[in-house]
Amino acid sequence: MKVQEGIPQPPSINPDVLTKSERKRRKKYSVDEYVAGILSGNRTILSQAITLVESSLPEHYDKAQSIIEKCLPYSSKSIRIGITGVPGAGKSTFIETFGLHITGEGRKLAVLTIDPSSEQTKGSILGDKTRMEQLSMHPNSFIRPSPAAGTLGGVARKTRETIILCEAAGFDTILVETVGVGQSETAVHSMVDFFLLLMLAGAGDELQGIKRGIMEMADVIAITKADGPNKMIAEGAKVTFQNAIHLFPAKSSGLKPQVLTCSALKNIGINELWEIIMDYFKFTRKSGYFEELRKQQAVIRMHSTIIEYLNNSFYNRKEVKLLRQELEQQLYEGTITSYKAAVILLDKYFKR
Amino acid sequence: MKVQEGIPQPPSINPDVLTKSERKRRKKYSVDEYVAGILSGNRTILSQAITLVESSLPEHYDKAQSIIEKCLPYSSKSIRIGITGVPGAGKSTFIETFGLHITGEGRKLAVLTIDPSSEQTKGSILGDKTRMEQLSMHPNSFIRPSPAAGTLGGVARKTRETIILCEAAGFDTILVETVGVGQSETAVHSMVDFFLLLMLAGAGDELQGIKRGIMEMADVIAITKADGPNKMIAEGAKVTFQNAIHLFPAKSSGLKPQVLTCSALKNIGINELWEIIMDYFKFTRKSGYFEELRKQQAVIRMHSTIIEYLNNSFYNRKEVKLLRQELEQQLYEGTITSYKAAVILLDKYFKR
Repeated sequence: MKVQEGIPQPPSINPDVLTKSERKRRKKYSVDEYVAGILSGNRTILSQAITLVESSLPEHYDKAQSIIEKCLPYSSKSIRIGITGVPGAGKSTFIETFGLHITGEGRKLAVLTIDPSSEQTKGSILGDKTRMEQLSMHPNSFIRPSPAAGTLGGVARKTRETIILCEAAGFDTILVETVGVGQSETAVHSMVDFFLLLMLAGAGDELQGIKRGIMEMADVIAITKADGPNKMIAEGAKVTFQNAIHLFPAKSSGLKPQVLTCSALKNIGINELWEIIMDYFKFTRKSGYFEELRKQQAVIRMHSTIIEYLNNSFYNRKEVKLLRQELEQQLYEGTITSYKAAVILLDKYFKR
Repeated sequence: MKVQEGIPQPPSINPDVLTKSERKRRKKYSVDEYVAGILSGNRTILSQAITLVESSLPEHYDKAQSIIEKCLPYSSKSIRIGITGVPGAGKSTFIETFGLHITGEGRKLAVLTIDPSSEQTKGSILGDKTRMEQLSMHPNSFIRPSPAAGTLGGVARKTRETIILCEAAGFDTILVETVGVGQSETAVHSMVDFFLLLMLAGAGDELQGIKRGIMEMADVIAITKADGPNKMIAEGAKVTFQNAIHLFPAKSSGLKPQVLTCSALKNIGINELWEIIMDYFKFTRKSGYFEELRKQQAVIRMHSTIIEYLNNSFYNRKEVKLLRQELEQQLYEGTITSYKAAVILLDKYFKR
């Protein structure tokens, strides 16, 4: 049930650039129509389904869930790559070059972005298209910006569900990009098969900004901008990182994280990186780790969704909100134990 | 309100070595009697109060909480040091030598252990005494093994409350030791002012065992067993760690983690380590970080207690237990989304 490659996508029907009145005239599809459209590789319907996933209206939620469930069986053949990078690593330029390499390999590529702080506006959509100009115009790529601002858990869920829809629409390669260096990396790590970290040469201070937990996630560390006079500095940084990696615990994939240098601008090292990634997938599919990780991720995501819900339910309860500040003040003054303060709030929540 | 140092502790009244019938003949004290006894530095009463804290009986719980609350104001002058180490680093030998150095400085030392997997028996208590033979007999030291096995949260809470009681009894230096290299380090980190990590020279494979998150917590990394032919290897490891530390994010104390070598057996580097620790406390007390961290820890502990409770309450609910496995199976088979599975369980829990 792969997408029918024969049907060309009319570039004029890009729903992201529809006018307001065009949006209103959109047909309301049934669940089955959505699913059929997605499976046929129709980008307009795919985009509309993603909009449904991103919606916060309850009636959209139910419809979206039904669509996703029917699309679930079509996602096992894809590869999902998470990308993050330190500020200045040139993520957009990298994704543009890397993405064109991937489509050049005959693959169909979807680029998704997670940014819990984003406010989705026309501006930012156009921004995404602009910063990856060639890739966004490529017939075999599909770029979708981050869902509108929300809790990290909410934004992450929407992105996960968008992955499923894209895969059902025939995109066999998914790049999930995180914006900034922060908490969203963990969320992305929980939804991808492979994690790529872009670093900058010139170590020292710049590296302080990246959390070690993020370095620990990396399957490959790519030092970007390794061209011209910067090449030697990048090679030096490569050695530093390789040494640092010795201090890291073994990865559950059984493969050691690799460090390489590349230049997106000069298209150096991009093919080498892609081959390392392909080897990774060959190895993990053969060892069974690929499938096992996806299964584990699904279970972990259920539990983290539950914890997040319990958390929100507790701290948003009016009685808890009212007392919390007072108890924190008492903790600050050292007049109550943490345990007793917790019990008082729990008693309020459970109305005991 | 420091302990009256003039009153000697009769070494024969060590409650840990009371016979069963002696235990039964113990006087039942009132809350005020407990508090007065603790504040006077009476070890027997201190030990009994700790037993009360460790008890799982509800009537003991209420009494223990009242005692702790009255002891709370007496704990601000102490210093709390967490210690963990890789297997083979020689933690017991280290604590013996380090502890004797601390008592030699005229300080009163309590050594507590956290081991969520421990089953507290007479054997393990004697075990703790044996492995720190000299220190356990020192009049100014007090060694208390881990509370009996339980959830990490439960064991951690008991240890935190034991710290408060020990401090009220005049112990101005608390060592909290974790057993094994695992999850309990984070719990200990949340209850100490300073975190010491013992590592072994001979890097490579041994280091794989330690999580980077634990290295990130360390205020000092001490490479142990740096004596004899091992000394040079230890110095080499010191350089490796110093380089690795450059990749770590800055610590909120404002101080860079330090790396040193030491030998507990030959008493080399122990005094130097102690001086680094004293400098740390001088600096953080002056900067206000010391007090600020303790306040933050109290608030964080309240929240983590709440999260742990919500978690347990959810997953121990019969309806959740019954459905959980079935949903995990469906997730494994890829026939349901994580979000939908979470919603089903949450609906059961909240009886919606």
